[in-house]
Amino acid sequence: MCDRPKNTDVRLRLPAVCFIWQTAMIILFGIFIRYDSESSPYWVEYKRDHNISSDAENDFYFRYPSFQDVHVMIFVGFGFLMTFLKRYSFGAVGFNFLIAAFGIQWALLMQGWFHSLDYSDGKIKIGVENLINADFCVASCLIAYGAVLGKVSPVQLMVLTLFGITLFAVEEYIILELLHARDAGGSMVIHTFGAYYGLSISWMLYRRNLDQSSRLQGSVYHSDVFAMIGTLFLWMFWPSFNSAIANHGDGQHRAAINTYLALASTVLTAMAISSLFQKHGKLDMVHIQNSTLAGGVAVGTAAEFMLMPYGSLIVGFCCGIISTMGYIYLSPFMEKHLKIQDTCGIHNLHAMPGVIGGIVGAITAAAATEPVYGSEGLIKTFGFEDHFEHRTPAEQGGYQAAGMCVALCFGIGGGIIVGCILRLPIWGDPADDNCFNDEVYWEVRDKSLHMAAQTTKSPG
Amino acid sequence: MCDRPKNTDVRLRLPAVCFIWQTAMIILFGIFIRYDSESSPYWVEYKRDHNISSDAENDFYFRYPSFQDVHVMIFVGFGFLMTFLKRYSFGAVGFNFLIAAFGIQWALLMQGWFHSLDYSDGKIKIGVENLINADFCVASCLIAYGAVLGKVSPVQLMVLTLFGITLFAVEEYIILELLHARDAGGSMVIHTFGAYYGLSISWMLYRRNLDQSSRLQGSVYHSDVFAMIGTLFLWMFWPSFNSAIANHGDGQHRAAINTYLALASTVLTAMAISSLFQKHGKLDMVHIQNSTLAGGVAVGTAAEFMLMPYGSLIVGFCCGIISTMGYIYLSPFMEKHLKIQDTCGIHNLHAMPGVIGGIVGAITAAAATEPVYGSEGLIKTFGFEDHFEHRTPAEQGGYQAAGMCVALCFGIGGGIIVGCILRLPIWGDPADDNCFNDEVYWEVRDKSLHMAAQTTKSPG
Amino acid sequence: MCDRPKNTDVRLRLPAVCFIWQTAMIILFGIFIRYDSESSPYWVEYKRDHNISSDAENDFYFRYPSFQDVHVMIFVGFGFLMTFLKRYSFGAVGFNFLIAAFGIQWALLMQGWFHSLDYSDGKIKIGVENLINADFCVASCLIAYGAVLGKVSPVQLMVLTLFGITLFAVEEYIILELLHARDAGGSMVIHTFGAYYGLSISWMLYRRNLDQSSRLQGSVYHSDVFAMIGTLFLWMFWPSFNSAIANHGDGQHRAAINTYLALASTVLTAMAISSLFQKHGKLDMVHIQNSTLAGGVAVGTAAEFMLMPYGSLIVGFCCGIISTMGYIYLSPFMEKHLKIQDTCGIHNLHAMPGVIGGIVGAITAAAATEPVYGSEGLIKTFGFEDHFEHRTPAEQGGYQAAGMCVALCFGIGGGIIVGCILRLPIWGDPADDNCFNDEVYWEVRDKSLHMAAQTTKSPG
Repeated sequence: MCDRPKNTDVRLRLPAVCFIWQTAMIILFGIFIRYDSESSPYWVEYKRDHNISSDAENDFYFRYPSFQDVHVMIFVGFGFLMTFLKRYSFGAVGFNFLIAAFGIQWALLMQGWFHSLDYSDGKIKIGVENLINADFCVASCLIAYGAVLGKVSPVQLMVLTLFGITLFAVEEYIILELLHARDAGGSMVIHTFGAYYGLSISWMLYRRNLDQSSRLQGSVYHSDVFAMIGTLFLWMFWPSFNSAIANHGDGQHRAAINTYLALASTVLTAMAISSLFQKHGKLDMVHIQNSTLAGGVAVGTAAEFMLMPYGSLIVGFCCGIISTMGYIYLSPFMEKHLKIQDTCGIHNLHAMPGVIGGIVGAITAAAATEPVYGSEGLIKTFGFEDHFEHRTPAEQGGYQAAGMCVALCFGIGGGIIVGCILRLPIWGDPADDNCFNDEVYWEVRDKSLHMAAQTTKSPG
Repeated sequence: MCDRPKNTDVRLRLPAVCFIWQTAMIILFGIFIRYDSESSPYWVEYKRDHNISSDAENDFYFRYPSFQDVHVMIFVGFGFLMTFLKRYSFGAVGFNFLIAAFGIQWALLMQGWFHSLDYSDGKIKIGVENLINADFCVASCLIAYGAVLGKVSPVQLMVLTLFGITLFAVEEYIILELLHARDAGGSMVIHTFGAYYGLSISWMLYRRNLDQSSRLQGSVYHSDVFAMIGTLFLWMFWPSFNSAIANHGDGQHRAAINTYLALASTVLTAMAISSLFQKHGKLDMVHIQNSTLAGGVAVGTAAEFMLMPYGSLIVGFCCGIISTMGYIYLSPFMEKHLKIQDTCGIHNLHAMPGVIGGIVGAITAAAATEPVYGSEGLIKTFGFEDHFEHRTPAEQGGYQAAGMCVALCFGIGGGIIVGCILRLPIWGDPADDNCFNDEVYWEVRDKSLHMAAQTTKSPG
Repeated sequence: MCDRPKNTDVRLRLPAVCFIWQTAMIILFGIFIRYDSESSPYWVEYKRDHNISSDAENDFYFRYPSFQDVHVMIFVGFGFLMTFLKRYSFGAVGFNFLIAAFGIQWALLMQGWFHSLDYSDGKIKIGVENLINADFCVASCLIAYGAVLGKVSPVQLMVLTLFGITLFAVEEYIILELLHARDAGGSMVIHTFGAYYGLSISWMLYRRNLDQSSRLQGSVYHSDVFAMIGTLFLWMFWPSFNSAIANHGDGQHRAAINTYLALASTVLTAMAISSLFQKHGKLDMVHIQNSTLAGGVAVGTAAEFMLMPYGSLIVGFCCGIISTMGYIYLSPFMEKHLKIQDTCGIHNLHAMPGVIGGIVGAITAAAATEPVYGSEGLIKTFGFEDHFEHRTPAEQGGYQAAGMCVALCFGIGGGIIVGCILRLPIWGDPADDNCFNDEVYWEVRDKSLHMAAQTTKSPG
């Protein structure tokens, strides 16, 4: 069934999906979504009732700068990171834009039902923290996009996002609410889940003859520079990502410091390995664009814990090595033997560092002691309140590890199921010899490029 | 008179304008501009006198993050959005830089005389809110630049900016102070005014033989990717734009949420229409670069009102459709029958969504009720204080609509007058067969490009 | 000794340096670096003990938005500013990334020992202000990189950074602590020091036959557009740079306003001079990319003083002229007669404006009076407290000038010594005919580019 000649005309399918889903969003938002007490005009009265002296106490001012940084990571960071392919820059940045814009709406609903539902009136009350969480949720689907970049249609991406967000919300609810694990920067809930979700889908959509598109794989000089825009905006704003929803005060402060340090350390070891394993010690842009970010992923869970500055450096040190080695040895192995074609190498950038991050988080939590955190700090950092007031750090470590497993299961299981759905021959995906090609879904007027692509084909 | 061979040498004219106007700025700043109480060293005493407990109450901390986001929109957002032309990227980003840098100075003066003049000493007192307003003011001229991109000289752009800022300040004074309309995100005062100002100028400067430059119109692959940088930074930071000068607390918070949602919705419908009306459902980068932003424009006026989350989605939904349809049908129509050559399609991105935004604002204001806003919230949101304490929401709706008309009149009227001035043959504008060409005003050393442009000329 | 054929294979040297130095960082961080009271979990108790009512008083919220802007300047701003060369974009942005990531770690230690050492336990306590200062410190080395761009190996750059940071910390300690000079935006400590450090190194590394690489000097069309990304992010976020570590409240507020104005003014005069001195008045991208930033450099020291808005405009006005004239006349002169090859023209962008900034700072400080600052404002702005409570503004002016001299001496002296070290033939630097070439240190797969470079060689 999958071997019929491919019809990549999405003229009816894409608009239909966009219009119907967007209309559904409007209806569901109309029924469910309202402003919370800090974004409604009743804030004046809320302030007085709760004895809040200043507008500066509105959560907006604690989180909005971080929110904007995260927003840049989602749209410019992820979007431009994927522009490295010589002829898939429109698809990279454009489809990233499309699915993120849909995903944040669906995420506000899904996460709202699980986390922000006001049982008194059945409404979801949203504020700036919900916007950040929606961006986070979408990040997992954009990570998954990295694995299938250039090999799927925009309609498939919309389906991937719809199910991805749904699975994310359930998985996040189990990990953060039921298990009460902490995951400020989402090493587990975002990166591990998103990466294995994408890898499983890519495995299900394995393309035997992908080498027929090899003329279009790889980068040109300027597309690599564009990709560095993505890399750098991700790298620079990662401290905001990991601190965006951490506790006010020292929580956000510490998360930013730890992430800053882990990322700095990663850059050096990624560069070192890249040079060491290459002929004549020449650096490879693929490693610089991706592996330099691994430390930020791996420090996600433990960012708000007392990881200590040197601990952050160690995490970054190891991840820079592992991630770059992954690009050199593991990716070719996975493509050849496991039939997983991972366009952007998300296994090296998100999956492995994400798992490491979960483990680091579990260990750091289990090792927490009152002298290090202070008695109040310990309670505040791990949320040992209400139902969880008798939980010990050691137990918390166990629950963190359990959370890791939940993220893995949801990622792999969900990816296999969604991969099955995406194999249906109705989504308009390209043929094996036409992957990584913007001309399939975009008006490309620049014919000189077309000719160049043909020319490089022969000697390439 | 206008048919003499064109002299595009601006070697004396451009430096003369820059030096003289900049000197005038220095003199006028020396006479008029001083720091306000929050940016002067007397802040320590001001704090004590006004019983302010913390430096966090300084307006700087409420608005500076939004200011920086707006600043990025003005210089990178508008600048890069216009780099899509294959050989006019220098002019797009460079002249945008020039006129914005001049405009913000002149805007500080013009807006200061109207809004921030301290009558006790005849000085304008500036703080961070003035900087934001100056950026806003300049935005209207950069919108106008979009209509004439590639067809005017930098000297003409300076003149366009000088008059544009002046008209803006008067129009804004009438709308915001005399009519007491609300316009946090500037759908009326910035977008509607700026767009009709630019379109009227473009109409006055109609070029009969512009098709002689058709080899230079359109984009190349990488120039489209550059333009996406502009698109995305505008899209991401638009919530900051619409919330930057809204009320502290819930006002800023709500404006950011509404804008975030309207923009998300726009992306889906813009993509849908782009695919639906194209052969084989292929997406067009022109639409993705521009129409995805229409929701941000249209939600400007009502962003701080109780538009409700679903209301924002509906506004974005409609504007995505209207704006994209505008690019497909209206722009060619306007060029052919109305003699308006609109290089960037600002009619579709700013004019129509701006007018819609004004109407949405008027309706939302007229529909405001005390149960929805709370009695204090209603007063605070619409500023029903002092002179305006007896105004009802219904009346406010009428004044909003009146504001819309003022913006339209100033835009069209001002544009026609300034267009007349710009037709004088003294400004160094290029000939019809030399538009959209960086080599006219820039040293372009890259001759390979020159050759490429010649080559594509023949088959193009 | 320096004339042997060059071996540019850094396969062992670069990884060795990265691994050893990063390991050293981990050990030193383990021994010395801890969280400060605002980023440790004891913040809850600290707040109570110090009667702090709100988390909003945590320094994180005063400085984090500025920190992120500075971070963008360091990695995207400096990185992309140097991408203008046609075939050295990887090296520009990649090596900038490498040395900045190393430098911020070493800076946290060096600056920590001098400024943040807690003598009670011998630990350095870090918070967000330390992160900003580390970024500042690195900026001086990135400025120095500008002078030697394309002519050194990554190993040399690491050495340049190691010594540069060390010298910076000593020089900064003398200027800010011993002399008690004020330098919020670092005109002296960052720009003057960094620029003369780089120029001295470039002088020591003079290459007689650099014209053999002339085919690779200069830009192509799109590399100039990439460089504008760097320019604009530096330009836009410079107000954050100069205000990031200024006093809370009016100090940060005023520094941002002054920088905003100085930069606006610079753009106009830089454009004017560029046009005036060019054939047919055509603008030169080199000037627009660099000289438009000179005002931000020159207003660094005085940004938090009562420079007055018109004073900022005047500083920007002059620097735009001087910097652009420098590119036109001084740079060729220095290369020909002084044997200083300054790839990015840092003498025009950082050295001269930095010195001007130091002088402006000294004059503004010396002219400070109590009526202008208020008695409390004067004390707070200049830190006339403790040891320095009897210092007068006139004396302060003298110390500012002395600070300028210290920065100059450290820059020139340090640069000569480090230049000697870098002349050792062990660092893997490229030969004279192979400078400005990414293929030396990077895997460049894009062979079409290679061919293009060869072609442009002949007519170029």
